[in-house]
Amino acid sequence: MGFLDGVFGSKDKATDEDTYMKLDLQAYEGAVGESEPATMYVKVASVCDIKDCPKIKDEIYNGNIVIIDITKLKLDKIMFDRVMGDLRAVSRDVNGDIIGLGDQRYVIVVPTGVRISREKLGGY
Amino acid sequence: MGFLDGVFGSKDKATDEDTYMKLDLQAYEGAVGESEPATMYVKVASVCDIKDCPKIKDEIYNGNIVIIDITKLKLDKIMFDRVMGDLRAVSRDVNGDIIGLGDQRYVIVVPTGVRISREKLGGY
Repeated sequence: MGFLDGVFGSKDKATDEDTYMKLDLQAYEGAVGESEPATMYVKVASVCDIKDCPKIKDEIYNGNIVIIDITKLKLDKIMFDRVMGDLRAVSRDVNGDIIGLGDQRYVIVVPTGVRISREKLGGY
Repeated sequence: MGFLDGVFGSKDKATDEDTYMKLDLQAYEGAVGESEPATMYVKVASVCDIKDCPKIKDEIYNGNIVIIDITKLKLDKIMFDRVMGDLRAVSRDVNGDIIGLGDQRYVIVVPTGVRISREKLGGY
């Protein structure tokens, strides 16, 4: 910050975002023994159209868990209803479960034999 | 909006949030046959302190998947490092997997036999 900044005020405007630090989350990521076969996969998906659904449905039918980013769907209520209806149908079909995560940004769909707890752990 | 609003400008300020519609996500949630026993649970947790970790670790040791909201940790780098180190240790201990979801808001920790795919499905 230079002298003029001190007199006329800094141009740097601290936003809420700036108060968060850059955190190195990637340093903590990773699996051990990746060569071992997994009985189940967690997959992350992003949906903006009903055309994205078949791939997601395949994963559910194959017994995998899918966490779906629905942010892009929020701009189109009709598409939202179509996609969500489709996903609910799959979770019913396989006797699975479906729930929204946080502030309606993600939807979790789980296959047969898995349940999503409605109780939140910790952080109070 | 009244006459004065027209003259002096409306006090209603449209934010980005307002452009999103209210979507009835809850209408699509829910499991079928809830009485049936599940082999695995997906649990949602929120962490703001290292004290929240034992409960989460118990779930991982019990073979459940935990999706952890780490938003509150972003304000405290030291606590972030402690918590993330703890969670990584658990996932290594049980030969599971750990990954960050989206914009560093959530962390997914999975138990033995489950893997998190690094490939994103759809939405391009």
